Amino acid sequence: MPSASKPNFESTGLALATSLFTVSAVWFLGKIRRDSKHHGPPRHQHSSENYTDRTKGVVGNRGNRALAPPIPYLEGFLKCLGDQCDLVTNPEGHVALCIAENKLALNLLQERFTQGGTAAAAFADESVYCYNSFLGMPVAREAAAYFFARRFLFPERQELPADEALLHIRPSHVALGAGCAALLNNLFYLLGEPGECCLIPIPYYAAFENDMNLVAGIVPFGIHQVNPTLGPSVAELNLAYMQAKAKGLTPKFLLLTNPNNPLGVIYRPEVLLANVQWARKRGLHTISDEIYALSTHQKPGQHGFQSIIKVLDNDLGNDVHMLWAVSKDFGGSGLRVGFVYSQNEIFMEGLATLSIFTAVSGPIQYLVAELLTDDEFSDSFLDESRDRIHQSYLICTNKLQEMVVPFIPAEAGLFVYVDLSSLLPEKTFACEERLSKLMLDHARIVLTPGESQRDTNPGMFRICYTWVSPEVLELAMERMSKLVGKLRRMDWDDLDSRQLKGIL
Amino acid sequence: MPSASKPNFESTGLALATSLFTVSAVWFLGKIRRDSKHHGPPRHQHSSENYTDRTKGVVGNRGNRALAPPIPYLEGFLKCLGDQCDLVTNPEGHVALCIAENKLALNLLQERFTQGGTAAAAFADESVYCYNSFLGMPVAREAAAYFFARRFLFPERQELPADEALLHIRPSHVALGAGCAALLNNLFYLLGEPGECCLIPIPYYAAFENDMNLVAGIVPFGIHQVNPTLGPSVAELNLAYMQAKAKGLTPKFLLLTNPNNPLGVIYRPEVLLANVQWARKRGLHTISDEIYALSTHQKPGQHGFQSIIKVLDNDLGNDVHMLWAVSKDFGGSGLRVGFVYSQNEIFMEGLATLSIFTAVSGPIQYLVAELLTDDEFSDSFLDESRDRIHQSYLICTNKLQEMVVPFIPAEAGLFVYVDLSSLLPEKTFACEERLSKLMLDHARIVLTPGESQRDTNPGMFRICYTWVSPEVLELAMERMSKLVGKLRRMDWDDLDSRQLKGIL
Repeated sequence: MPSASKPNFESTGLALATSLFTVSAVWFLGKIRRDSKHHGPPRHQHSSENYTDRTKGVVGNRGNRALAPPIPYLEGFLKCLGDQCDLVTNPEGHVALCIAENKLALNLLQERFTQGGTAAAAFADESVYCYNSFLGMPVAREAAAYFFARRFLFPERQELPADEALLHIRPSHVALGAGCAALLNNLFYLLGEPGECCLIPIPYYAAFENDMNLVAGIVPFGIHQVNPTLGPSVAELNLAYMQAKAKGLTPKFLLLTNPNNPLGVIYRPEVLLANVQWARKRGLHTISDEIYALSTHQKPGQHGFQSIIKVLDNDLGNDVHMLWAVSKDFGGSGLRVGFVYSQNEIFMEGLATLSIFTAVSGPIQYLVAELLTDDEFSDSFLDESRDRIHQSYLICTNKLQEMVVPFIPAEAGLFVYVDLSSLLPEKTFACEERLSKLMLDHARIVLTPGESQRDTNPGMFRICYTWVSPEVLELAMERMSKLVGKLRRMDWDDLDSRQLKGIL
Repeated sequence: MPSASKPNFESTGLALATSLFTVSAVWFLGKIRRDSKHHGPPRHQHSSENYTDRTKGVVGNRGNRALAPPIPYLEGFLKCLGDQCDLVTNPEGHVALCIAENKLALNLLQERFTQGGTAAAAFADESVYCYNSFLGMPVAREAAAYFFARRFLFPERQELPADEALLHIRPSHVALGAGCAALLNNLFYLLGEPGECCLIPIPYYAAFENDMNLVAGIVPFGIHQVNPTLGPSVAELNLAYMQAKAKGLTPKFLLLTNPNNPLGVIYRPEVLLANVQWARKRGLHTISDEIYALSTHQKPGQHGFQSIIKVLDNDLGNDVHMLWAVSKDFGGSGLRVGFVYSQNEIFMEGLATLSIFTAVSGPIQYLVAELLTDDEFSDSFLDESRDRIHQSYLICTNKLQEMVVPFIPAEAGLFVYVDLSSLLPEKTFACEERLSKLMLDHARIVLTPGESQRDTNPGMFRICYTWVSPEVLELAMERMSKLVGKLRRMDWDDLDSRQLKGIL
């Protein structure tokens, strides 16, 4: 490229990546289908009813379905990105607290990958340029098997010889994919039939619906719980099962996220066991999404997290499948590397074919393998990351306590689930949406509304506190506090925007 | 990982990557459905008729369908990998000539990526770790747009300012995906309806069937041609269209591979134009797969290749879509980076949602962007690669001429299509399969049989000559020559394997 006219690719890279282009990430993160409010069957596969003049004849029915409808907080997030808060240059700018991405320890990962000849070594190996199994290169599958054995199956052991580890977790039972979304899609596609349904405890990560439905046609069906922090009881599972059946749906999957998003809680081992036993009796597959497994607030041994691998004593059978990724615990969502651990060998055989569409780049596999087998680095990284997460959590929750806003005490994850329902004049999602708008307009902050997570109680919000620096977080919480204080003294029927000034 | 017991991940990486694990690549590369011989509709979506005791209840119908049946040359390829020929250590080992992968210039790419701080720079940029558009980072989409403008739209110009390039090829019309297979799957999924069909000139790359059918449910339908090297005539297109209709199928796509795989020919611009015009009149999308565009035997200006972008004067409309990747022309199939160029903005909008499953890792996007904008390197790389490809082609075809084996003179690609039908006692695919077996058993070489490429004439084989060194290629061709010589003098009804000794 002639250098005189070469555009500044580097600077546009960073600027645009955090503006226009994160949009579709958000689009996905908060994907909502207005036509399938709560847990009814969403858009039918292959229906053509929603064609518009704009799309007719330009794409197919499935292309039409893939056109994401606006999400409640998309407008706000766009504003955030176009006018991001910076303590020095733009202290009155917008703050996004709606993206579950951990940027707090990014510098440590950067250092690890850029040190010495680390990155170059990944590109020196001839095999990374060539066709490999689409399930992943041996080096990466072995590394992940070792990592899972050490962290999830034998977390109590100080030392675990690799040879021993691979006897327990067989690399052939581990596969890589371009992120957990891709692996979820592949699991649902290969194990389920279109129109079957997946039970998920409410509230849940909104994009699960996309992952199971967009291609695989699996219908999300929420499990209502008296106390969602405990995980579903057998009675609640039975009820959801019967409700789904009554709607003509066939439950085929139970999807658990542990630690839970958005609640930030850790399910107790006995709950997990009861859930799997229940699912097995009914012939359901259990998918245990453990993408936040190592983002606990307490150190290993001090928190109650147990992987499904441990809970089942590594006897997953054909019907339990564990997911993990480097996206959250190592803050590398942009690396697009997820893992599935499944002992269902027929499934793995099908996955080898399907993964042609979702394979991970060779050099990235090589580097991730290095990361997962470098115990010294990953131990210290995870310790430091945990500390930083917890510090930001405290900034957030200390302020919430000061504001007397109830929240669910989090044990893990990158978020806290708060109850702002007392602010709503009426317990409706219209009021929840209005509160979102007030937050955006007057405090310039964006949260993830409960409605987008299929909560049935209006006024719940998820606050993601690791996407911004602790300083920006502090400022955002201060703004929230001021707004909440003012709103408590005002009648929403008579809101005077002049009285809402002065928050920034 | 405790170093005392750390398994040698590096060495297993290379060894296994080229053994067990390339298998599923091959699996895919030569994927064949015996239940859909030639161009009849392949396996129906969602049918459960093929369940076996082994798979029933373990995976779903789609999982069952994804279990690839053996391919004719899988056994042979496995033998190749388990006992690879090496001139020094294993001169009687097996030689795989069935994989369209260019390893001849791998060292140049390795050098480029490992030089200075190139690789480290890709991991130093914070944005590569974070969520980005699943269509690709701006830096990568801009780089590809520039590359397409310079190489495909204005190949005759010595200099093309980047700013000007991006006025012609808009980065928003370019998307990345984890290889062309992923992008094909996404194109077929978003633009077509299940059960619609795609017309493809025969013979064709076997895995296209997987790409269009496995998930998207599009039915491949072959176009018969009097002279396949010319590309389909309007009369042949019309005939295929009517044949498909007569079988109750609705043609929705025309898929052209230019330069063509397996023929190695370049379609003339007027043929491409006539094909697109025909498809437009019928309401079909045209997909132009140009993955071998720069692997021509002659230099630019001396060969007749014109991209569809140039042929249509960059007016692709909503119905023409161009694919390219770094897999073949830069020998980086393991990097899993493909590109689609489409001016259909509604399609791109749907693709942004669907690409959550098929996104490319951030650092790889960054490096590929560097590759595509480094004109000096890519000019010299492509020149050198072209020379090496051509040299290997000559080794292969000189021997074929000496053997008096007819072949289609190739102008591009990594293969030559040869006619061994004169060796067959009967013109049947059973005899073709038998010849494959003789090649494997007595010459220890594996070719891609025509049947796996839906050829209707038994006895055609594709020889891929860039997967091994020129020296190993020479040895393999020598073996083939000896075997062919012997077979010509023998009666297949009375084959004496002792007479076939001494070839190695």
